[in-house]
Amino acid sequence: METDKFLDFLTESGFFYPSFEIYRGKTEAGGFYDYGPLGVELKRNIIEKWRRIFIYPYQDFIVEVETPIIMPKIVFEASGHLEHFTDAITECLKCGRKYRADHLIEEELGKRGVSVKTEGLRLEELDELIRRYGIKCPVCGGDLGPVKPFNLLFQTTIGPYSDNIGYLRPETAQGMFVSFPRVFNLLGRKLPLGIAQVGKVGRNEISPRQGLIRLREFTQMEIEFFFDPENPRCPFLDELDVKIRVLPEEDVKAGKKEPREFRPREAVESRVIPNEWMAFFMGLATIYMNELGIPTDHQYFLAKLPEERAHYSSASFDQMVFSERFGWVEVSGHAYRTDYDLSRHMKFSGYDLTVERRLKEPKEVEEVRIYPNPTRIREVYGNEAGKVMKALSTADPNELRSSLERSGEALVGGYRVTRDMVFMRVERRKVFTERFIPHDVEPSFGVDRIVYVTLEHAAKVIDGRFILTLAPDIAPIKAVVLPIIDKEEYNKIGIELSRKLMRAGFRVVFDNDGTIGSRYARYDSLGVPLAITIDEETLRDNTVTIRDRDTKVQVRVGINDVPIIIKKAVEENKTLSRLIDELKLTIYTRQH
Amino acid sequence: METDKFLDFLTESGFFYPSFEIYRGKTEAGGFYDYGPLGVELKRNIIEKWRRIFIYPYQDFIVEVETPIIMPKIVFEASGHLEHFTDAITECLKCGRKYRADHLIEEELGKRGVSVKTEGLRLEELDELIRRYGIKCPVCGGDLGPVKPFNLLFQTTIGPYSDNIGYLRPETAQGMFVSFPRVFNLLGRKLPLGIAQVGKVGRNEISPRQGLIRLREFTQMEIEFFFDPENPRCPFLDELDVKIRVLPEEDVKAGKKEPREFRPREAVESRVIPNEWMAFFMGLATIYMNELGIPTDHQYFLAKLPEERAHYSSASFDQMVFSERFGWVEVSGHAYRTDYDLSRHMKFSGYDLTVERRLKEPKEVEEVRIYPNPTRIREVYGNEAGKVMKALSTADPNELRSSLERSGEALVGGYRVTRDMVFMRVERRKVFTERFIPHDVEPSFGVDRIVYVTLEHAAKVIDGRFILTLAPDIAPIKAVVLPIIDKEEYNKIGIELSRKLMRAGFRVVFDNDGTIGSRYARYDSLGVPLAITIDEETLRDNTVTIRDRDTKVQVRVGINDVPIIIKKAVEENKTLSRLIDELKLTIYTRQH
Repeated sequence: METDKFLDFLTESGFFYPSFEIYRGKTEAGGFYDYGPLGVELKRNIIEKWRRIFIYPYQDFIVEVETPIIMPKIVFEASGHLEHFTDAITECLKCGRKYRADHLIEEELGKRGVSVKTEGLRLEELDELIRRYGIKCPVCGGDLGPVKPFNLLFQTTIGPYSDNIGYLRPETAQGMFVSFPRVFNLLGRKLPLGIAQVGKVGRNEISPRQGLIRLREFTQMEIEFFFDPENPRCPFLDELDVKIRVLPEEDVKAGKKEPREFRPREAVESRVIPNEWMAFFMGLATIYMNELGIPTDHQYFLAKLPEERAHYSSASFDQMVFSERFGWVEVSGHAYRTDYDLSRHMKFSGYDLTVERRLKEPKEVEEVRIYPNPTRIREVYGNEAGKVMKALSTADPNELRSSLERSGEALVGGYRVTRDMVFMRVERRKVFTERFIPHDVEPSFGVDRIVYVTLEHAAKVIDGRFILTLAPDIAPIKAVVLPIIDKEEYNKIGIELSRKLMRAGFRVVFDNDGTIGSRYARYDSLGVPLAITIDEETLRDNTVTIRDRDTKVQVRVGINDVPIIIKKAVEENKTLSRLIDELKLTIYTRQH
Repeated sequence: METDKFLDFLTESGFFYPSFEIYRGKTEAGGFYDYGPLGVELKRNIIEKWRRIFIYPYQDFIVEVETPIIMPKIVFEASGHLEHFTDAITECLKCGRKYRADHLIEEELGKRGVSVKTEGLRLEELDELIRRYGIKCPVCGGDLGPVKPFNLLFQTTIGPYSDNIGYLRPETAQGMFVSFPRVFNLLGRKLPLGIAQVGKVGRNEISPRQGLIRLREFTQMEIEFFFDPENPRCPFLDELDVKIRVLPEEDVKAGKKEPREFRPREAVESRVIPNEWMAFFMGLATIYMNELGIPTDHQYFLAKLPEERAHYSSASFDQMVFSERFGWVEVSGHAYRTDYDLSRHMKFSGYDLTVERRLKEPKEVEEVRIYPNPTRIREVYGNEAGKVMKALSTADPNELRSSLERSGEALVGGYRVTRDMVFMRVERRKVFTERFIPHDVEPSFGVDRIVYVTLEHAAKVIDGRFILTLAPDIAPIKAVVLPIIDKEEYNKIGIELSRKLMRAGFRVVFDNDGTIGSRYARYDSLGVPLAITIDEETLRDNTVTIRDRDTKVQVRVGINDVPIIIKKAVEENKTLSRLIDELKLTIYTRQH
């Protein structure tokens, strides 16, 4: 397939195209794409399909929220993004152009036939490569400055005070971490709990390229899935009828390239995937791609090595899908974020983000209570006794006890306190619960990339034209209404039928322009699964033909049965060929 | 209704709540709200209902797009937002606090019993009021500095160059204007053409208040509807079976308060609304509110006076809905933006945004062609003759002609050109088309405000509890499955049924906690239209009861018929009482 032509075809059909086209050359704003009328519908259908696979069946413990795109600075201090969410940048000392250092090195050395892998390299190592190979500015030939970190967060100001910094979120995830206690309470304080979100995020790429694959603004579908690490069982794991392909960490390290196939449980048992929930979501992710038309052998999960992983992740897999145009593309990331994020937010907010766990067996704990001995304190500290007693009342009793038992004294609020200045009571108590910070597994999907790989996998070239074999449930237009010839009486029926379908909420088109063959071809190429034709017989007996895009089979049905056939095709995602059996329709012709 | 308690109830039920709660007191980020699990569903259903009313029935000429939230600076230079999209701000000279001047004046004078209206006042006028009444900083009592404009665009930087400024869009509209030529081509270069978008926008309010009513980040649903001002007919206007309530500009000026009722066409004919498409969308907007449960007498369209209108608008109406909590709230704006935006973008981009119109009668035009007379030019200008001829080739022939005919000479590229230096030919030609800039009407809806007024209108207080009477199609949860007592055999059937419904994509809840009466009450208060109860009979004959939230009517049906009943209730937006007739269900009991 000529993929450049395919991209042009998608633009000309109105799936997507670069934003701000009329300002091209007047402004520098790459990495932004518009979705046109067909793209909006396809994207929405792909998102809804994700909900149908990841959320709706599990809605008793996976719920969706919507949180802001703009978040205050403290959130990203806590999350670590202010420190870690950077790319390496180098600036030409002569012309001032700025480059993403790793990409520049790979490209410039590539031109010389030298292949290097820069992922995970530190700033100094990138710098070293530039110096060693004498890499210059590819535009003006100038020397390149030192490699520095460039933070990818879009920065802004909230309200009228210029020091009140905010950022656009680079992932929807932080919204779920920050609202965890609220949602945890809403759902009855139970684990496991998945909090999902679909929404826009921003990453201020240094020099974005590759169309929908690397954007500055894009849509993510993410679940932060919280569970008790001591109770990591997923009761749905064995229900999944799927095999997943994984290139495990040890294989990556050994330089192997061929993924291995596992049942999800197998992958956990052989310690390829660290826990059941992660394996569960990776299984669902495989099924999701399958249902979008991407076969299992066009996808696998690539384990990320420690130096390649995000700062919050203790284990990560990228779900890779094969693209003729872009090679292997990461469409989702599966990270074991452990208790990293909640711990950090707990520290930065001072808000208790622990939850309670019932102990299997109650355990005995010692509870220390310490009271001041006012007489003794007054003897030593006189007028300052009140301050000493106040300091004692806020001191940690366990720390105080251990210091007093160790050395006979302790420093409390700057005052030296000795054993005789306090009364100490130690009580033993049975406790039935303990508190802990939940662990988190995150499946995170990039919608825009999924839109692209879905389109590429749906594409066929027939007679030099692109045909999109999109499934009925994700196809942007469900049916086209075609009067066989452009005549008043045919048009009238066709317009009436299409308006009726539109009012019923179906996405349909009416078209009377051109030969019937050219119109069939036109709508096949836009992925429209059903074509409804008004012909001579329609005038006589109110029947129409329905033609299937993929098999070209045609059936004749009453015009009033059209809505229910489209509805069944869309809702149950069935081709006309399958509906013929179910609804006992009579095949009319196999022509066209 | 105690509206403060109602707001608490909505928070505790998980509709919406302030964002970043765990960081309260550690950061200043008001004006941001999260949607919880119920809120996300309700909001999505309200958006989908908007599409069903405004887009789907008219999808042959109204299409949806998705454009970026971040846009480059030049877009907002062109749109006028950089210049005009401001609020008046004043800063305390002592403590440095900043205030929105109009709000501060109204509040401070309100405390003194003085009522002033500040909308539309100029900066100097606001300043004058502060000085005249000696208004001070309400926190520290300090003097207030001069009133200045504060731009409400959230500013950021695109890419690594700090001078490459971008802004978050304050309306989705500019995305449609900027992509107009692309979408116009996609849809066959025909008018009228509506381009719709649903998406996030940002307005950096100085001091946001009032919960969902005034947010810094919120969701808009907008249509930019382009039409030929010489052909402004709307063929659907008379189909609308609705009366709209309008307080026209003349009534506002006359100080009248009571809206008048019009059929949409009447409002156009009596020049209350400037064109048919605007009246059409205002009719649809009234129907939309009706279908969300807001009666016509709780809404009206308020004409904006010239000084109150946005800079781009030649006529505007705010659709106002009554709220017990917030008074009259603007839920949508209807602006006649004329050719303002496209003209401005044409000027700033240099891109031709005109479209072609067939003339009713072809007309004759004069075409002027001007050729240099090289001999004469060389005589006068010698070596510079080439430059003069080049300048002539790019000069506007019409301007050149009129100057030469007026004064016998013209200045071209700095050279004085006389009549004898050129040959002039005037041709008369018939033309059948002309080019013009389409006019634009914009209906623009604030989703978050609509979510709130919908909830308020759905609320009833029964026995001291809030009940939400949300229609089945917008209710966040469609049904609850309740075992009549918490026993293994009942629970098992209930869990199985609810998982089956979840997998079919329905939003349902299973609950076995508490008495059946308290559970009915709990889900009535969350707006769940249907309750399905598993009881003794279920064990015997596989039937369940379905109870209607509003009428309390119960019917008994086979457990396998439950999905189709929920489906019909949701898709056709029918209460159980209506379905009883249609499906010939037997009423079981009217108790509970």
